[in-house]
Amino acid sequence: MKLSARNTLKGKVTEVKLGQIVGEVVLDIGGQKITSVITRDAIEEMGVKVGDEISAVIKSTEIMLLKS
Amino acid sequence: MKLSARNTLKGKVTEVKLGQIVGEVVLDIGGQKITSVITRDAIEEMGVKVGDEISAVIKSTEIMLLKS
Amino acid sequence: MKLSARNTLKGKVTEVKLGQIVGEVVLDIGGQKITSVITRDAIEEMGVKVGDEISAVIKSTEIMLLKS
Amino acid sequence: MKLSARNTLKGKVTEVKLGQIVGEVVLDIGGQKITSVITRDAIEEMGVKVGDEISAVIKSTEIMLLKS
Amino acid sequence: MKLSARNTLKGKVTEVKLGQIVGEVVLDIGGQKITSVITRDAIEEMGVKVGDEISAVIKSTEIMLLKS
Amino acid sequence: MKLSARNTLKGKVTEVKLGQIVGEVVLDIGGQKITSVITRDAIEEMGVKVGDEISAVIKSTEIMLLKS
Repeated sequence: MKLSARNTLKGKVTEVKLGQIVGEVVLDIGGQKITSVITRDAIEEMGVKVGDEISAVIKSTEIMLLKS
Repeated sequence: MKLSARNTLKGKVTEVKLGQIVGEVVLDIGGQKITSVITRDAIEEMGVKVGDEISAVIKSTEIMLLKS
Repeated sequence: MKLSARNTLKGKVTEVKLGQIVGEVVLDIGGQKITSVITRDAIEEMGVKVGDEISAVIKSTEIMLLKS
Repeated sequence: MKLSARNTLKGKVTEVKLGQIVGEVVLDIGGQKITSVITRDAIEEMGVKVGDEISAVIKSTEIMLLKS
Repeated sequence: MKLSARNTLKGKVTEVKLGQIVGEVVLDIGGQKITSVITRDAIEEMGVKVGDEISAVIKSTEIMLLKS
Repeated sequence: MKLSARNTLKGKVTEVKLGQIVGEVVLDIGGQKITSVITRDAIEEMGVKVGDEISAVIKSTEIMLLKS
């Protein structure tokens, strides 16, 4: 199975919060934190919980750059 | 200066490709690769080049999860 | 600090609503209204409140055009 | 006809650039500049040209906030 | 009225769920299911309800491909 | 393998166009047309060509609704 999205970052779930429609999942990606907001249905169907090895997937056109 | 986007991943530029309207920038984020597609104008104004320390910024609602 | 996003529109906050995971912030941009949905965490950490001078930031690939 | 996107900003086209697949349209929105990247096909079918009165349409979940 | 978004899929509403800020609308598109998350305000202003003939609109840069 | 994106629409490729950085893939989804803009790299690595059975994947927060 091949997905066109160029970005798959492996991480570990550190936090899961559920709202009515969407929920928030925080991942640790090699020491850096990523927050994902997806539907509550997706979190429940995937059974996402703290400690899970999971990947963040991001389409290239959604990534901005910041130079300090 | 505070930006609402929850995700800022520090990385180093490994590749820059320019098209007519958009361009592609590849970052190394602690050993994992990220590809960003932004406007050519942005790449040129920011002066992005290989070796730069730069961050990827992503809005939380743009991050999907993948469980293998 | 330079951000690749091409669009920064200065405005004033006219409304803030908080849900469990996300919240809604309405800005007045020179007489036109903009509604942003971001995480509740971002609204709280930035301390967004009615009357604040704040900017909307939008990646160019997220802007559609409509001709009437 | 009703569209769910909460944000429609009226403007005037100041620049149009065409690439092979996508193109860039710059609008003036009450003195502030907005850059949109859409498909070349869309620009051609809509017949977008400098001077046109046109609106930018943006889904609320695509708008970030920046506080300086 | 012409919108630059290249993708308009006609469907019928099979489910509507409201949260505080956003809501979820499920459409049947010729036998395939589509879930849209938009603001609660948009759902209420448009008066979306089960059985409505409605279209899903998607910007081309938001569509990924998956090959199995 | 489970992906959080709620929307996977099965289709058949009817057109592929390549630019320098991005390309355009048109799918037929049960008689309705979908246009996807992804990186040229993704199109080449996945080997997308006319006639392929392929799916469009879309995050729920990217889907707007239109009522006529």
